[in-house]
Amino acid sequence: MTTKDWRGCFAIPMTPFDETDRIDEDVLTAEIEFCIESGVGGLVVPVMVSEFRLLSEEEHRTMIRVSVQVSSGRVPVVANCAAVNTPSAVSYARYAEETGADAVIAMPPYVLRPDFEIIFAYYQAISDAVSIPVWIQNADVVALSTEQVVRLCTEIENVSWVKEEVVPSTHSISALVSKNCPAIEGVMGGSGGLYMITERARGSKGVLPSCTFCDLVQKVWELLDEDKEDQARDLHEHLLPAIILEGLMGMAFAKEIMIRRGVFKNNRVRSFAHPLDEDDMREIDRVWERIQPYLIWGK
Amino acid sequence: MTTKDWRGCFAIPMTPFDETDRIDEDVLTAEIEFCIESGVGGLVVPVMVSEFRLLSEEEHRTMIRVSVQVSSGRVPVVANCAAVNTPSAVSYARYAEETGADAVIAMPPYVLRPDFEIIFAYYQAISDAVSIPVWIQNADVVALSTEQVVRLCTEIENVSWVKEEVVPSTHSISALVSKNCPAIEGVMGGSGGLYMITERARGSKGVLPSCTFCDLVQKVWELLDEDKEDQARDLHEHLLPAIILEGLMGMAFAKEIMIRRGVFKNNRVRSFAHPLDEDDMREIDRVWERIQPYLIWGK
Amino acid sequence: MTTKDWRGCFAIPMTPFDETDRIDEDVLTAEIEFCIESGVGGLVVPVMVSEFRLLSEEEHRTMIRVSVQVSSGRVPVVANCAAVNTPSAVSYARYAEETGADAVIAMPPYVLRPDFEIIFAYYQAISDAVSIPVWIQNADVVALSTEQVVRLCTEIENVSWVKEEVVPSTHSISALVSKNCPAIEGVMGGSGGLYMITERARGSKGVLPSCTFCDLVQKVWELLDEDKEDQARDLHEHLLPAIILEGLMGMAFAKEIMIRRGVFKNNRVRSFAHPLDEDDMREIDRVWERIQPYLIWGK
Amino acid sequence: MTTKDWRGCFAIPMTPFDETDRIDEDVLTAEIEFCIESGVGGLVVPVMVSEFRLLSEEEHRTMIRVSVQVSSGRVPVVANCAAVNTPSAVSYARYAEETGADAVIAMPPYVLRPDFEIIFAYYQAISDAVSIPVWIQNADVVALSTEQVVRLCTEIENVSWVKEEVVPSTHSISALVSKNCPAIEGVMGGSGGLYMITERARGSKGVLPSCTFCDLVQKVWELLDEDKEDQARDLHEHLLPAIILEGLMGMAFAKEIMIRRGVFKNNRVRSFAHPLDEDDMREIDRVWERIQPYLIWGK
Repeated sequence: MTTKDWRGCFAIPMTPFDETDRIDEDVLTAEIEFCIESGVGGLVVPVMVSEFRLLSEEEHRTMIRVSVQVSSGRVPVVANCAAVNTPSAVSYARYAEETGADAVIAMPPYVLRPDFEIIFAYYQAISDAVSIPVWIQNADVVALSTEQVVRLCTEIENVSWVKEEVVPSTHSISALVSKNCPAIEGVMGGSGGLYMITERARGSKGVLPSCTFCDLVQKVWELLDEDKEDQARDLHEHLLPAIILEGLMGMAFAKEIMIRRGVFKNNRVRSFAHPLDEDDMREIDRVWERIQPYLIWGK
Repeated sequence: MTTKDWRGCFAIPMTPFDETDRIDEDVLTAEIEFCIESGVGGLVVPVMVSEFRLLSEEEHRTMIRVSVQVSSGRVPVVANCAAVNTPSAVSYARYAEETGADAVIAMPPYVLRPDFEIIFAYYQAISDAVSIPVWIQNADVVALSTEQVVRLCTEIENVSWVKEEVVPSTHSISALVSKNCPAIEGVMGGSGGLYMITERARGSKGVLPSCTFCDLVQKVWELLDEDKEDQARDLHEHLLPAIILEGLMGMAFAKEIMIRRGVFKNNRVRSFAHPLDEDDMREIDRVWERIQPYLIWGK
Repeated sequence: MTTKDWRGCFAIPMTPFDETDRIDEDVLTAEIEFCIESGVGGLVVPVMVSEFRLLSEEEHRTMIRVSVQVSSGRVPVVANCAAVNTPSAVSYARYAEETGADAVIAMPPYVLRPDFEIIFAYYQAISDAVSIPVWIQNADVVALSTEQVVRLCTEIENVSWVKEEVVPSTHSISALVSKNCPAIEGVMGGSGGLYMITERARGSKGVLPSCTFCDLVQKVWELLDEDKEDQARDLHEHLLPAIILEGLMGMAFAKEIMIRRGVFKNNRVRSFAHPLDEDDMREIDRVWERIQPYLIWGK
Repeated sequence: MTTKDWRGCFAIPMTPFDETDRIDEDVLTAEIEFCIESGVGGLVVPVMVSEFRLLSEEEHRTMIRVSVQVSSGRVPVVANCAAVNTPSAVSYARYAEETGADAVIAMPPYVLRPDFEIIFAYYQAISDAVSIPVWIQNADVVALSTEQVVRLCTEIENVSWVKEEVVPSTHSISALVSKNCPAIEGVMGGSGGLYMITERARGSKGVLPSCTFCDLVQKVWELLDEDKEDQARDLHEHLLPAIILEGLMGMAFAKEIMIRRGVFKNNRVRSFAHPLDEDDMREIDRVWERIQPYLIWGK
């Protein structure tokens, strides 16, 4: 398979923490297995869903290392090399390639919003450090214009994939795809999979959701590939309550579901915000109950 | 019916503009009729869904006047009196009561974020100007704490209802309801109806969505009243794709649906942002097609 | 004097409110006289310093009307026509020209951030409604790129002046001036006058501060005109503590100073935020005491 | 000297980078010497002025280690232990104490805005890890209320100092000081020293500016101690143009000044934003020229 063929659900693992707030590598291993057994097209790790901005440097590398080792070539692994400064991003990128990752992904420098020249130099430095594809993660945190994304892909050797989430992601994906830029191998969507059907109609090659229901997201994609749009929309509709609760409750929801799926041991998050309360748990139970008939993995 | 009995779908009319960017009162009349025939519990107008911040003062009053006249006592009308300054808010509140509105609603002063004393004085002035209930619209634009909402309701005579949307609205509603504040007659949710089922379980008495599918929202509420939670969730699930597209495309989506429902003549908005493109229209067609079997009004 | 000759301090009057929160036209009249007697190059009214977003439509027009009537052709008056929607902006622009204003100024639609096509149509509609120059107020509220400003000035007949404050305003002014765009008659700076000397070196033709110390700001400009840069910097340095307190305390500071200058009767503001406390008043007293030897008006 | 006696200018070193974007320890050593020779009351490192959010973990520790080693007990060193997660913050705090720092400082978790319970646990964990004073850095990034600051200081053993910058910092300092909380040893201001005179009048014990002109800031403080307020205000006024340019140009300005002071070799920053242009350099030259007569260090 060449990189041009990447498509479908590129699932994002959450970072499992143990009771002492350290990464639980056993659970992480089980989570990667869960993703691969669910038939995903690829893995992307550690990004926002993985709470990567709250990881130490060593934890960041652990997420890459374990994901690559466990997947062991069965699916492509896109490793996040975004960092607080360029030397650190370069260092993550090198680590990712040495470890065996199939690509790296980075949003522009995100702590402060730099001028475009700095963003260009950042991607240039990352590209120079590796010989694998470099993905741009384009979101409203530091939104690049369509023209800037095209320039980065055209002028910098390895930059060739885009995860496009600038609001409205639908229009952003169309704008990018309509450029027919030969240096862009593919554009994928994010937004938790909320708009994956209309984004796909606009030319996205895949979608990057949390891995919580990656079996179902992958199935929706395949139904669309088979031209069974109504079935795809039916299944997607059954998924929506879960996607919406993830938006409301954050990663604690995703981890709570992973407990029910038999993969996680706890719902511990660092991106706390609002701990789940009893009514949240009751709502999760109801949504879990209703989605169970459609689950694929573990059946 | 006393005000304490207000419950269910309090629908928000969109503002219909004609081709010269003026309010089309005929369409507005048809829209109010549509809401009432859909069985809503009440009307709230003109708020964010009505693009109220983009209305001139006269247009603001027109929205209140026509809504009250057309509804003519058949359902309670909650008129928005939020304004850029306190004298204007007071003036809208007086106008609303004189015109026959059943209540007024206001978010705190929203152009600049004032100290709480100023917010208190603003609600005091509104309350002093009327003898009908005053609703607080609490959202992240100018978020009030639970304690501040309780204080406003307790210490100011007419302030007695709350539309609670501070993120996460679920926890905010629970926090407020658990206070058992005798001065609060009711708390309702918003968020386009996205969380209406779990918000209701937490004690909300109703929900304030755009009126686009107010027949279905009202039906979901009634099914819950009848303890038919599964049927309610089924119907709500069929609604989700539309709620999600409204979030993605804004009021142009809502007005586009209203054309299909036979009420609006165009999808003209002032809160433009991103005009609908061909793929948007195709997606709206698909979502419209799929939701049609469930529609109640007009069947 | 042709419009091309506009330069120096274009002072912004604050809106004086009486004890019942209404505009005090007598004080406003005195304020405009104060500005003109201070030798300003022009007046700009009612903008942010005038708390224009907190004015009713009638109050907005009052600010324009009184300013034009009192100045009576002695200095050019630039009237703000920015509004919550295009018909209202057009209506203010027409009112301004009919009343006798020498130009209108508008920031792009500011309630929601529209696409550029909408912004273009907004300025086109304003330009079509008048035959006097239209200024663009460019600030971070809705920042236009240099290219967009040039396009608006080049393609729309009356759009020909720019108040440029996009951070850093210095670089933004240089970027605009270096375009040598024949359709731009002049660029002026704002930022309370904080950077007026370096902005002038970059090609700005004037500065738009609150009118509090417009005699001194105008004097700084004239000293620079006379190539007395050191004297200009000395005087500007004496002004800095006041500019900094205005930034800290807002318009309540500006109005408090106007009381001491014998023009205002109170420091009442609508853009409240934080009422002045005793320590604020003591600090204002000290800054007032120290700047008095340099005052020009009233001596 | 007990910690209660800490007062005056607690200067913040900038992080010097060499041409390969690594920390230049020789320049850092010279910078710390410069601060101490300038007579500062203490050092705070590495915080915002030091671009700490753009440092790798090792670089963060290097900034602490070199600062402590060079100062060698001559002035107190307050080491920043703020981090992206609690274990990392605890690890920095331990490192700081072991290395010999006199106190640690931390803003609340800043990547995501957590609930207060999480913030409490974060400071508790830091306090538990050390036996030196813990400072709270309170700014609008994650603003704590006065009540929350008092609670943290009262209920957590080592938390006893506050750098207070929540806008308006003047009112925030007064609110905190007026609590007369016995668990608070002192409150200091920041804001680049812009409001240091009025903040001191409100009870602040010191100010934390960039070290660029720490000799002058310290002198202003001492003049106030000697009741020479007019001389203090004169000197502060001469400082204002530099403080204002630092606000406009960021740390590139501060480093450019440090070149002129003979301490830095370049103005390389990671918090890029906008590279200095020729007009910036000319303005820096003028401001530098005018401030030279007042400099103390190096004379």
